[in-house]
Amino acid sequence: MGIVLGHHQYGKAENRVVRIYRDTPRHEIHDLNVSTALRGDFAGAHIDGDQAQVLPTDTQKNTVFAFAKAHGVDQIEDFGLALGRHFVDDVEPVTGSRIEIEEYSWDRIPVDDVGHDHSFVRRGHDVRTTAVTVDGEGSDQQTWVVSGLRDLVVLKSTGSEFAGFLRDEFTTLAETHDRVMSTSLAVRWRYSSSEVDWRTAYDTIRATLLEKYATVHSLALQQSLYEMGEAVLERRAEVAEIRLSAPNIHHFVVDLAPFGMQNDGEVLYAADRPYGLIQVAVQRDDAPAPGRAWDTVPGFC
Amino acid sequence: MGIVLGHHQYGKAENRVVRIYRDTPRHEIHDLNVSTALRGDFAGAHIDGDQAQVLPTDTQKNTVFAFAKAHGVDQIEDFGLALGRHFVDDVEPVTGSRIEIEEYSWDRIPVDDVGHDHSFVRRGHDVRTTAVTVDGEGSDQQTWVVSGLRDLVVLKSTGSEFAGFLRDEFTTLAETHDRVMSTSLAVRWRYSSSEVDWRTAYDTIRATLLEKYATVHSLALQQSLYEMGEAVLERRAEVAEIRLSAPNIHHFVVDLAPFGMQNDGEVLYAADRPYGLIQVAVQRDDAPAPGRAWDTVPGFC
Amino acid sequence: MGIVLGHHQYGKAENRVVRIYRDTPRHEIHDLNVSTALRGDFAGAHIDGDQAQVLPTDTQKNTVFAFAKAHGVDQIEDFGLALGRHFVDDVEPVTGSRIEIEEYSWDRIPVDDVGHDHSFVRRGHDVRTTAVTVDGEGSDQQTWVVSGLRDLVVLKSTGSEFAGFLRDEFTTLAETHDRVMSTSLAVRWRYSSSEVDWRTAYDTIRATLLEKYATVHSLALQQSLYEMGEAVLERRAEVAEIRLSAPNIHHFVVDLAPFGMQNDGEVLYAADRPYGLIQVAVQRDDAPAPGRAWDTVPGFC
Amino acid sequence: MGIVLGHHQYGKAENRVVRIYRDTPRHEIHDLNVSTALRGDFAGAHIDGDQAQVLPTDTQKNTVFAFAKAHGVDQIEDFGLALGRHFVDDVEPVTGSRIEIEEYSWDRIPVDDVGHDHSFVRRGHDVRTTAVTVDGEGSDQQTWVVSGLRDLVVLKSTGSEFAGFLRDEFTTLAETHDRVMSTSLAVRWRYSSSEVDWRTAYDTIRATLLEKYATVHSLALQQSLYEMGEAVLERRAEVAEIRLSAPNIHHFVVDLAPFGMQNDGEVLYAADRPYGLIQVAVQRDDAPAPGRAWDTVPGFC
Repeated sequence: MGIVLGHHQYGKAENRVVRIYRDTPRHEIHDLNVSTALRGDFAGAHIDGDQAQVLPTDTQKNTVFAFAKAHGVDQIEDFGLALGRHFVDDVEPVTGSRIEIEEYSWDRIPVDDVGHDHSFVRRGHDVRTTAVTVDGEGSDQQTWVVSGLRDLVVLKSTGSEFAGFLRDEFTTLAETHDRVMSTSLAVRWRYSSSEVDWRTAYDTIRATLLEKYATVHSLALQQSLYEMGEAVLERRAEVAEIRLSAPNIHHFVVDLAPFGMQNDGEVLYAADRPYGLIQVAVQRDDAPAPGRAWDTVPGFC
Repeated sequence: MGIVLGHHQYGKAENRVVRIYRDTPRHEIHDLNVSTALRGDFAGAHIDGDQAQVLPTDTQKNTVFAFAKAHGVDQIEDFGLALGRHFVDDVEPVTGSRIEIEEYSWDRIPVDDVGHDHSFVRRGHDVRTTAVTVDGEGSDQQTWVVSGLRDLVVLKSTGSEFAGFLRDEFTTLAETHDRVMSTSLAVRWRYSSSEVDWRTAYDTIRATLLEKYATVHSLALQQSLYEMGEAVLERRAEVAEIRLSAPNIHHFVVDLAPFGMQNDGEVLYAADRPYGLIQVAVQRDDAPAPGRAWDTVPGFC
Repeated sequence: MGIVLGHHQYGKAENRVVRIYRDTPRHEIHDLNVSTALRGDFAGAHIDGDQAQVLPTDTQKNTVFAFAKAHGVDQIEDFGLALGRHFVDDVEPVTGSRIEIEEYSWDRIPVDDVGHDHSFVRRGHDVRTTAVTVDGEGSDQQTWVVSGLRDLVVLKSTGSEFAGFLRDEFTTLAETHDRVMSTSLAVRWRYSSSEVDWRTAYDTIRATLLEKYATVHSLALQQSLYEMGEAVLERRAEVAEIRLSAPNIHHFVVDLAPFGMQNDGEVLYAADRPYGLIQVAVQRDDAPAPGRAWDTVPGFC
Repeated sequence: MGIVLGHHQYGKAENRVVRIYRDTPRHEIHDLNVSTALRGDFAGAHIDGDQAQVLPTDTQKNTVFAFAKAHGVDQIEDFGLALGRHFVDDVEPVTGSRIEIEEYSWDRIPVDDVGHDHSFVRRGHDVRTTAVTVDGEGSDQQTWVVSGLRDLVVLKSTGSEFAGFLRDEFTTLAETHDRVMSTSLAVRWRYSSSEVDWRTAYDTIRATLLEKYATVHSLALQQSLYEMGEAVLERRAEVAEIRLSAPNIHHFVVDLAPFGMQNDGEVLYAADRPYGLIQVAVQRDDAPAPGRAWDTVPGFC
């Protein structure tokens, strides 16, 4: 019996990169949070304290900022691929990399109904994400792109039921055929290619998720999520699978009878904890194997 | 010398009330966080443990939900006034009240370019607020309404300078005539009346703050804030004073020279802490006295 | 009618200063979060964008770090006083200052039951605070020190009642003579002097608050808080007044009757929101006037 | 090509259970956050909206509270095993379960140097965790217990180096032979058995992690982490593997030279972001296969 080093990776997390294009008076802004992680044989650092194979996390940070200038930032997937390939291809001991990026969106501030050239206001609640994995070198190199969004908060004030469920000795819940259903969506989807029109894909997927959430008459959050995932796969051929993680943010109808009032689902209490948590994957039956695409992507089953 | 009871108040904080209007197929949603506080002579509770004058915080919670039904929720200022007056007028030992409300905004989910009847998505980053104070009874009753917003995050990618500042032996900062300026606005304004078109006032003030932020060529965040406040007072006669609290979210230009690159303000690092913090009030010189309007409103000077 | 500049202040918030004494092998660590704010006539900056009177917030940051070396850090009140006086006395346009400091505590890591010389582990949940205000120059200078703590979370599993309270038409709460009572204490006390044995005072006050919370048979959180404040004033002559802000963190007894079980206060659900919020000041009847001591100290009534 | 349902699970997250033993005047308290997730064939719910196989998350919540009474709470691993087995064994459609628990620690409040019978204060910064997985039924049933801790914040003021590292064209970092090293430890370890003296194991592992962190002269955080993991495996035979995730919380030496001061590592700036992030597993070379032990445990490589 011996004690051995297992999986390991290291990097610089949460580099807050803002890239501004200002060559013309009408500026563009890209606001990112970039985390890098490198994989390889770093046993020397762990066991002997020998850093000869270790590219400092400070260097990784510098690289992120330098690439924001030299490579530029447009779609986060492209930026992640460029960074991820650089570390594997150009830094000798590195055999794999994982680049995780969040993007925060900005709108132009309207002035006389026209978006301003260089003044912006943070848009929306939700955040766009990607996790790019590069594994191996040369012709054996494999690449996976898992993109997504988080904190997309939605609510239906009707069109949702929950009834006919299994009961045991601990069941007290009443059935309902009309309830509020609300969640804060975290979604990730795996592309089957690294050559994608990322922006169009993202915009279509986000719109599809919202539209399906709105229009499906829901018999359970499970059903809504499955139909949302299915619709994404139907519309975007480059998506191999999609995973959804959705807290059921409970909105309880407040009992107003003690005050002589009827409450037909008009006054609700939005609870913090506990919350239901539904997690599901929807995939093509001929999807390529996920490989290491989902390693260390938190929060999905 | 003796030890005496000083100021005191008590209430129920953060009642998460969701009010849905569903009388027609096109639902409306109001999503609030309501905190109540009651003032009066509660010495018995503090000194003798006698609760005879104490309306439980649980009752205050019930009242908030019952009022959401009976009074209804449209503008948060009206809802706060109704609650605040009820506690003072109808609960004998209560001589003053403070109702603080936050409102979270929702958009209808677009389906085929039309907003859905009963499916919503959380809009935006910023939150609308009000703090209503009622003091005294009968004809002596005074009422103050301080409304505002928070977490309105803005950024200018040019049109901002900082130069000509005071220097001492600890000053190392370089002057700049072109920098990124960004902040997360918290703003509160005091109305001189309780009879206001609250929605129009709010919408105008928010738009004015954004527009002025965008269009003022800024010599310092101080100047931007003052001009934003001034413009609000110029446009809305019912606003007696406005207070702004603005963290200067520093965006540092990254030094790329070691990598042979020039960085003309294109690649920036967004820092978390420390941050500048500028706080300022702008007011009419004939504004009515603030009275207790600002008591316990946190975060302003 | 005109529009005028009102109160204003500016500074650098949340400087994360760690000061290590390492002259001997047994190191000492002081871990602070320091915020500075300067007051004076900064109308030029606000109205004309003229920075000639404005000491940059970057300089304030530098000053905090330089003082950590030159003046040293032992008690946060002394460090705050040194900084606050420096800005007022040495920077010409500054007529007032507010220095707010939080301190995070560390224990030595035990190795063979002895605390290690230079390895530490973060202690506890609660944070020590101070807010030092300096106002005016020369012999007219006034100084106030308001110290405190926050996030001191406590719970009593019995010895707490709530009964005999006022009832109205919205009251549904049952009386109880045995309940769990829990809170997360935020406390601030104003010293009547700037010459205090700060460490002893702090340690005594924290211990007194805990001890009184533990030993008072509570008829309401109001009563516990008052007795805690009173005990502090009785034991520490240098404290002029004390203010407590205490969320009532509700622990509801879960109804297990549907499962054929009795629940004698053994199984509870700890709720997040809403929570009761009790705020109270206890003071000496001959305390010196508070002046500007409490300006901008958030969260107390 | 078809679209199919992939992995899925559902449950009730973050049930805040407080269990008090109060049969004698000296009460005991256990303060937990319990999340349940059930696995099985729930295709009906997803695809047809048929809930006949779905035990509501509300029932799962009830079960957690009922078990807190009937089974009792002592060690979180035992409580997790009881819950996890119940769902799989007693609820027909359930073929697997995952129970995640966090425990918050309390100390007795000292009164006259003696811990009080029923008054408690929250201890410490760190949280004890477990994730119990039950898979399959009858004699095929497999069980995994992965326990751990998070938010254990430590700092060494010397005894840490970082030098001899790999350099590329983006490397600007200076070598150092004496630096501050600080991290907030998240650690999880997999037990090779479900019959363990959980409390002793936990206490020993936590003490070992701290002691090794303190005493290892560190040539890199990687090395410290490996030695900490190795020591745990050496001391606790029931631990098959251990995974550590450690942000390198950078403490930068502030340049005081512009102010004529020398800074020998005495004044530091504690940075928020970005941070290094080192993740490593240490394991026995004859450890049993992990199976599903680590599925959905976030934050480890």
